[in-house]
Amino acid sequence: MTTEHLVAQIHKKQSFLCVGLDVDLAKIPEHLLKEEDPIFAFNKAIIDATHEFCVAYKPNTAFYEAYGIRGWKALEKTIKYLNDKYPEIFTIADAKRGDIGNTSTMYAKAFLDDLGFDSVTVAPYMGKDSVEPFLAFKDKHTILLALTSNEGAFDFQTKEIEGKELYKHVLQTSKTYKNSENLMYVVGATKAKYLGDIRQIIPDSFLLVPGVGAQGGSLSEVCAYGMTNNVGLLVNSSRGILYASNEEDFAQSSREQAKDLQKQMKIELEKKF
Amino acid sequence: MTTEHLVAQIHKKQSFLCVGLDVDLAKIPEHLLKEEDPIFAFNKAIIDATHEFCVAYKPNTAFYEAYGIRGWKALEKTIKYLNDKYPEIFTIADAKRGDIGNTSTMYAKAFLDDLGFDSVTVAPYMGKDSVEPFLAFKDKHTILLALTSNEGAFDFQTKEIEGKELYKHVLQTSKTYKNSENLMYVVGATKAKYLGDIRQIIPDSFLLVPGVGAQGGSLSEVCAYGMTNNVGLLVNSSRGILYASNEEDFAQSSREQAKDLQKQMKIELEKKF
Repeated sequence: MTTEHLVAQIHKKQSFLCVGLDVDLAKIPEHLLKEEDPIFAFNKAIIDATHEFCVAYKPNTAFYEAYGIRGWKALEKTIKYLNDKYPEIFTIADAKRGDIGNTSTMYAKAFLDDLGFDSVTVAPYMGKDSVEPFLAFKDKHTILLALTSNEGAFDFQTKEIEGKELYKHVLQTSKTYKNSENLMYVVGATKAKYLGDIRQIIPDSFLLVPGVGAQGGSLSEVCAYGMTNNVGLLVNSSRGILYASNEEDFAQSSREQAKDLQKQMKIELEKKF
Repeated sequence: MTTEHLVAQIHKKQSFLCVGLDVDLAKIPEHLLKEEDPIFAFNKAIIDATHEFCVAYKPNTAFYEAYGIRGWKALEKTIKYLNDKYPEIFTIADAKRGDIGNTSTMYAKAFLDDLGFDSVTVAPYMGKDSVEPFLAFKDKHTILLALTSNEGAFDFQTKEIEGKELYKHVLQTSKTYKNSENLMYVVGATKAKYLGDIRQIIPDSFLLVPGVGAQGGSLSEVCAYGMTNNVGLLVNSSRGILYASNEEDFAQSSREQAKDLQKQMKIELEKKF
């Protein structure tokens, strides 16, 4: 999917919501456990109920690998369902991969080609030749971890190298990578005050922002500092939407949560456009 | 597996060789492609032929994910075969994972508990709460990326923070993590000269050293700078062993390669013990 297509969808739906499909069998409604594939059954219900209000879905691969073959089958079915039924939706494999060149190519092929995701998240620690194999895929996107929303982000990401934090070096250096126009970045919303600085380095790139809601980031603040003329934002919510209820009508509750976030996003978009 | 057990195996076999099971269907002998599960058939033949000369096997998960469900099945079969038939062998899931706390727990459970690997490689960029969930497993090991052997290592890992390279901060900071006694580190052999510095920070920890042989590191140099009273080294070889031949008798050629490396390792061990 091209960035232009994504931006058009955002304006059409008046939403830049991404729904994180982090399915935990211990948390889903009990009646689904009788299904042949409870993970996919849950995802399908969530997707059908929320797709009107979001522009992206993001399964985190850990939640699927945790269930072995069964989990991988559910992941395959989920991405196939999305690509078949809702091809206008942007899909993110939240895999946080990264390895030496030829090995990164294997990961890139797996997620972008074979599974057919529009994008994959990648860890920057191993540098250029671990990231560029992902960037080589046309109309696909590599979402590089820059500043994450967890406590451990302060261990290394915010440490200063020659007067500038490591995550800023990651932003700057990655701009020199081949096909860097295919880069997006993960930036934690709990650190909205950093967004101004970040926009000085990457004024136009899309940011994937986790941590709004449950983790306490403020949507208006994120938009004030992070929104560009091209929107440039995908804001993720996982647990808040997925586990809004664990009754039979859970999908309806998820829909309400997604709708509520979309309303807030519409207000933010109207401030700018 | 405890570190003591690993060290005892090293002395018994006079080897600290790790064989990287990076199976590429484009490179394995053609006659195996007729097998129901060519990846597992290849791994089984390689393991049976080389196990006398090595103490560890390390499948890189990218090579399995690249084949989807089929690849995951082959990975499951491979680790099960190792645990059933050669339980004295140390196993490494070269997965380079790392995510926020509860998500890292999912990965840790998948690789260390469900699949039953003795260890897993982890990327440090997200810091403490992304690494500690892996460290919580008793008699299991977390192999943290410190200084990798690829060109991109110079993008960030060797950049100085307050007069000290990032990878040294990773070594130092990780020592403060809970259950840090379960840590080992990836250190590229192409940078043997760094090993002296590294040993000042982590005098006793095991290092997993890729890049000897094909990537040009020198075994004697690695041992001179990196070996401890507890050996403290696992040296990996992948392609040099796996693809020594693609004839019918490929496993015999792999065995010769492994045997040759074991002989060199015996010499190094005899220098010290």
